[in-house]
Amino acid sequence: MIRSSNKFKWRHKHLLGLRELTREELEFILDTAEGFENISTRSVKKAPPLRGKVVVNLFFEDSTRTRISFGLAASRLSADVVEFTKKSSSVSKGETLIDTARNLEAMGIDTIVLRHGAGGAARLLSRSIDACVVNAGDGFNEHPTQALLDVYTIRKHRGSLDGLKIAIVGDISHSRVARSNIWAMTKLGAEVILVGPPTLMPSKVNDLPVTVSYDMDEVIEKVDVINMLRIQFERMGGNLFPTIREYARFFSLTVDRMARAKSDLIVMHPGPINRGVEIESEVADGNNSVILQQVSNGLAVRMAVLYLVNQAAANKAKGK
Amino acid sequence: MIRSSNKFKWRHKHLLGLRELTREELEFILDTAEGFENISTRSVKKAPPLRGKVVVNLFFEDSTRTRISFGLAASRLSADVVEFTKKSSSVSKGETLIDTARNLEAMGIDTIVLRHGAGGAARLLSRSIDACVVNAGDGFNEHPTQALLDVYTIRKHRGSLDGLKIAIVGDISHSRVARSNIWAMTKLGAEVILVGPPTLMPSKVNDLPVTVSYDMDEVIEKVDVINMLRIQFERMGGNLFPTIREYARFFSLTVDRMARAKSDLIVMHPGPINRGVEIESEVADGNNSVILQQVSNGLAVRMAVLYLVNQAAANKAKGK
Amino acid sequence: MIRSSNKFKWRHKHLLGLRELTREELEFILDTAEGFENISTRSVKKAPPLRGKVVVNLFFEDSTRTRISFGLAASRLSADVVEFTKKSSSVSKGETLIDTARNLEAMGIDTIVLRHGAGGAARLLSRSIDACVVNAGDGFNEHPTQALLDVYTIRKHRGSLDGLKIAIVGDISHSRVARSNIWAMTKLGAEVILVGPPTLMPSKVNDLPVTVSYDMDEVIEKVDVINMLRIQFERMGGNLFPTIREYARFFSLTVDRMARAKSDLIVMHPGPINRGVEIESEVADGNNSVILQQVSNGLAVRMAVLYLVNQAAANKAKGK
Repeated sequence: MIRSSNKFKWRHKHLLGLRELTREELEFILDTAEGFENISTRSVKKAPPLRGKVVVNLFFEDSTRTRISFGLAASRLSADVVEFTKKSSSVSKGETLIDTARNLEAMGIDTIVLRHGAGGAARLLSRSIDACVVNAGDGFNEHPTQALLDVYTIRKHRGSLDGLKIAIVGDISHSRVARSNIWAMTKLGAEVILVGPPTLMPSKVNDLPVTVSYDMDEVIEKVDVINMLRIQFERMGGNLFPTIREYARFFSLTVDRMARAKSDLIVMHPGPINRGVEIESEVADGNNSVILQQVSNGLAVRMAVLYLVNQAAANKAKGK
Repeated sequence: MIRSSNKFKWRHKHLLGLRELTREELEFILDTAEGFENISTRSVKKAPPLRGKVVVNLFFEDSTRTRISFGLAASRLSADVVEFTKKSSSVSKGETLIDTARNLEAMGIDTIVLRHGAGGAARLLSRSIDACVVNAGDGFNEHPTQALLDVYTIRKHRGSLDGLKIAIVGDISHSRVARSNIWAMTKLGAEVILVGPPTLMPSKVNDLPVTVSYDMDEVIEKVDVINMLRIQFERMGGNLFPTIREYARFFSLTVDRMARAKSDLIVMHPGPINRGVEIESEVADGNNSVILQQVSNGLAVRMAVLYLVNQAAANKAKGK
Repeated sequence: MIRSSNKFKWRHKHLLGLRELTREELEFILDTAEGFENISTRSVKKAPPLRGKVVVNLFFEDSTRTRISFGLAASRLSADVVEFTKKSSSVSKGETLIDTARNLEAMGIDTIVLRHGAGGAARLLSRSIDACVVNAGDGFNEHPTQALLDVYTIRKHRGSLDGLKIAIVGDISHSRVARSNIWAMTKLGAEVILVGPPTLMPSKVNDLPVTVSYDMDEVIEKVDVINMLRIQFERMGGNLFPTIREYARFFSLTVDRMARAKSDLIVMHPGPINRGVEIESEVADGNNSVILQQVSNGLAVRMAVLYLVNQAAANKAKGK
């Protein structure tokens, strides 16, 4: 099932972000995910490698979709899953997070999938415990498995990301998805264009390996892939954002704009969609959309990640 | 375990309501449930048919009891269970429901057990996705597995429903349980009498295959089965309802009324009971009560339903 | 795996409290837990004895830690786990509790792990149902598995509790942990000293097999084990408690106090810790602390309890 011919040896027992990974490492995760994707099509969608292992979904922010995806991925690998949702936790107390995690670890948990409001939380945690840590989103920093499933989906359609032009559209400054996307896509050879109003661009955008455009209409004609970020309504109303209507007029992916795009443009969205806001329904459900494929591929990618970090931990334990 | 001698072939990959089922189909579900009931008495209460399948409990309304019953039924068939409770979801947005379900489906979920506040939600969903849909209660429309466990329980005691007189007592107009009961019981040959104050009768009661009575004392003497609906306190206080005390005086199943009933009257209640309101404790816990048997039988019936819809889906996939 | 040579036969299908157990029974649980502890170190952390059994975590009070520990213990024994958290339940209605439990039992649940705000709730429940009942904390009464993991941890370090001097420090009067500790520790041969302000001592402390001290500094020098109870902030502010600062000055386990303690003092805490309140961080994380070992041992102890009560139920069912 796993491409064992690949000579590469995975060594990380944590997945904290994509910024620190090499192209070879990224490709190894994607290759491993390919092996796992077939399980989804078998009549018994189970593989044994994590039997007896325990994965905890430690979510300090709500995210039903990501939580369920990780849970199903763990379950298909025959791991047991523990849900630990701490809605009202005081996010600022790093100490509480670490004490919570150490307790879970003392109960024999093997992997912590962490969603946390503070950037760097997953890294902090990885320094304090022996269990594997998988970052499921930390503040405005990274959301590595989302970006992995994005590049997996693109690679599946185009064979490779080399030379592709990819637009990421929306509130870039507050998006960990955008950040992980930038690292994964550029390392794999794509050219990334950030699109959005100036107020929603990261302050240090010049340090990123990207170009920036404020004009959706100019960009739409030349890109191979477009990733429409979700508008976070809770951030509206400040002075970063005009009205939704105005935002949609300039940056929404409409049927009209699609008419000027390449015919094989790949349309992506991390979900959940605000239909009629950042994307029109006809486009979200249209032929160019791979939005539901992204969700499906998320399962294979998360299986690969859970499998690889546990393998690395087992190898470290054996002193290899 | 399953009565394979039964020549009938189940073809529905959704269970949306009982109104559209034939007597033969209803009996086939009950026969299948009988086969599964024995699993509950084995030392290892597991059967393998849904191993590797995923059942999601997608509950937009609270219902711990029904949710746990479906979860246990799925688990006994070796399926994995995902809980997805969306308390504060905007029930009116059908689109949100469908997007949520499509995402779950993209994650490889095989069956969606849906509880939703809007009548017709399960049917709407079944038209939009490929996964199996089981209606676990939709608005004031139907609650098919509750009615199936009711008729299963009666059949177990009497062998058949043919010719039985069955009273359903309480707030009929707002009860999906009553509605599914009416279809199941009359199709299986019983005569149904609706009992309650005129304000709580459905407006189009003349279109239903039932008779109506406003007089509990007259009905109690002649029926073989009585199904006491739960009083929904949240509906009290409007002009539909007098006080609880007054309601209880006219429609409660009391020890006094039981004294005038047939000695082998079967007393049912969908639970949870309001002791001392619609039913007195002595009656709920008495010899005629089958209330806890209903709960037990619910497991077998839900196993049968989950099994059959998945079989139908597998057969459709094979092009049979 | 289980020490079968032990001639003792466990007969209780409920674990309600430690007050009623004999020394022999307590030791049998600990011996059984030892057998299960090894499972935690195996690559596949699973044992089959409860396969097909269902354990429900019926928690009327929040306790993520205890709930997860029981869930993992059940899961390692291959049981299925159902979560039933009823936050806003009216604790005073014993009837509601019993109806809830009877319904769960009717669904074929084998063991109910009950956390409830009312002292005696577990015992009340055990009289009303056939399923096994394990008390996971009832009001101010008992928390037997917490005390079992405490004595298990001490026994592991010292071989036996005979003759050990053990201080329990803090709000004794509201602590079910303290109460279960007192029974387990004294039955196993230890001498228990309760330490805290007079306002936080139980009113009938003279009836308990303990001595009392109001002076932490006197006690710290002579004890072998110290168990620091968690300060319940929600109880502060009444007239039982001075300020936290004052409490900490008199009763906190500080580095300074540790310097005057025996060098091999065992430092315990039931968790979660209020760092800097009842215990300083350096002490909680220091060499004398066994706090995380307690958490680990909790898993083995709860596996033993779940295993033994189910065995007793099976034996009773067979008429042995």
